[in-house]
Amino acid sequence: MRVYLAGPEVFLPDALEVAAAKKRICAAHGLEGVFPLDPPPAAPPAERPYWMRIYLGNEAHIRSCGGLIANLTPFRGPSADVGTVFELGFMRALGRPVAGYSNVAEDFLARTRGFLGDAARPRADGGWEDADRMGLEDFGLADNLMVDGGIEAAGGGFERAEVPAGRRWHDLAAFERCVIRLAADARGDQWPSASSA
Amino acid sequence: MRVYLAGPEVFLPDALEVAAAKKRICAAHGLEGVFPLDPPPAAPPAERPYWMRIYLGNEAHIRSCGGLIANLTPFRGPSADVGTVFELGFMRALGRPVAGYSNVAEDFLARTRGFLGDAARPRADGGWEDADRMGLEDFGLADNLMVDGGIEAAGGGFERAEVPAGRRWHDLAAFERCVIRLAADARGDQWPSASSA
Repeated sequence: MRVYLAGPEVFLPDALEVAAAKKRICAAHGLEGVFPLDPPPAAPPAERPYWMRIYLGNEAHIRSCGGLIANLTPFRGPSADVGTVFELGFMRALGRPVAGYSNVAEDFLARTRGFLGDAARPRADGGWEDADRMGLEDFGLADNLMVDGGIEAAGGGFERAEVPAGRRWHDLAAFERCVIRLAADARGDQWPSASSA
Repeated sequence: MRVYLAGPEVFLPDALEVAAAKKRICAAHGLEGVFPLDPPPAAPPAERPYWMRIYLGNEAHIRSCGGLIANLTPFRGPSADVGTVFELGFMRALGRPVAGYSNVAEDFLARTRGFLGDAARPRADGGWEDADRMGLEDFGLADNLMVDGGIEAAGGGFERAEVPAGRRWHDLAAFERCVIRLAADARGDQWPSASSA
């Protein structure tokens, strides 16, 4: 099965090395990893702007894959990279298996409170809000409930690991757990660990 | 046409008032606004956790709608709320019209540089990178290219406005421009303004 490797690693100077490492792990478990920077199945129309050709290429990649693994490690804020989350939602709507991982283990609430600092304020009902009086999600999840829920609804898993900051974009242990999940799914096995909901 | 009203307003203390105002604007243009907090078309299974019932309700809402308007105003970082972006990607994959708006007009690059502060560093090639050496997108877009691209691919528009911070979650002028776009689409009109790509 072809698996789309969504994540902000495309922004790294060594993106192609990360892509190669992820593809090796996929291959070791019988899957074919597809990286966003790979040539798309068909060339997007040359007259579209460069950024739109990238978009159309990624969309074509996702449609060509039987599953998706998203790197949901927090990116410039308390949540995952929005490009990655767009792709996760897209693949969920196609009804194909998705899994996700984060190399930061802390809950979404704790991370959001850390990000907001003194701007996070307790509410009378025991919850928290920000300076705009917008509530903070507090479900013990890894990110916004649409992210965790989309993975859960697709039968996948959200794998969390606590990786030192210097290795956060390169440690692939949690990624490999996602690969093992999707490989079992592609074989029609039961999921290797019970779903949490 | 039913239109799903995606956005982080669900976190506001006056979320239901914002929902009512958006629905009034939709109705004035012949559309039916559907807010995430509305009762879903079918009740999610009672045995699922509360957060998962919210997820499943939102997914059912989106599937029941003919279009989506996303509030993509930056939320706790340089990008839009990830829950909203998940829903945008989901609806794009269903092939139905989507539009988006932001009440912050500044480009994504300028916003990301502002967020990173001194951690944003120039690259030798003229681009910018963060402290992890990850590149900053520089396409003159409103957000990550997957967000702008998904809207563009669906034939919609990304409406930007510069709204003072105190009115950022309540000003609906850019939202109304999205409603006008989707209403024209539902009638089979040409788009009211030319697409940029």
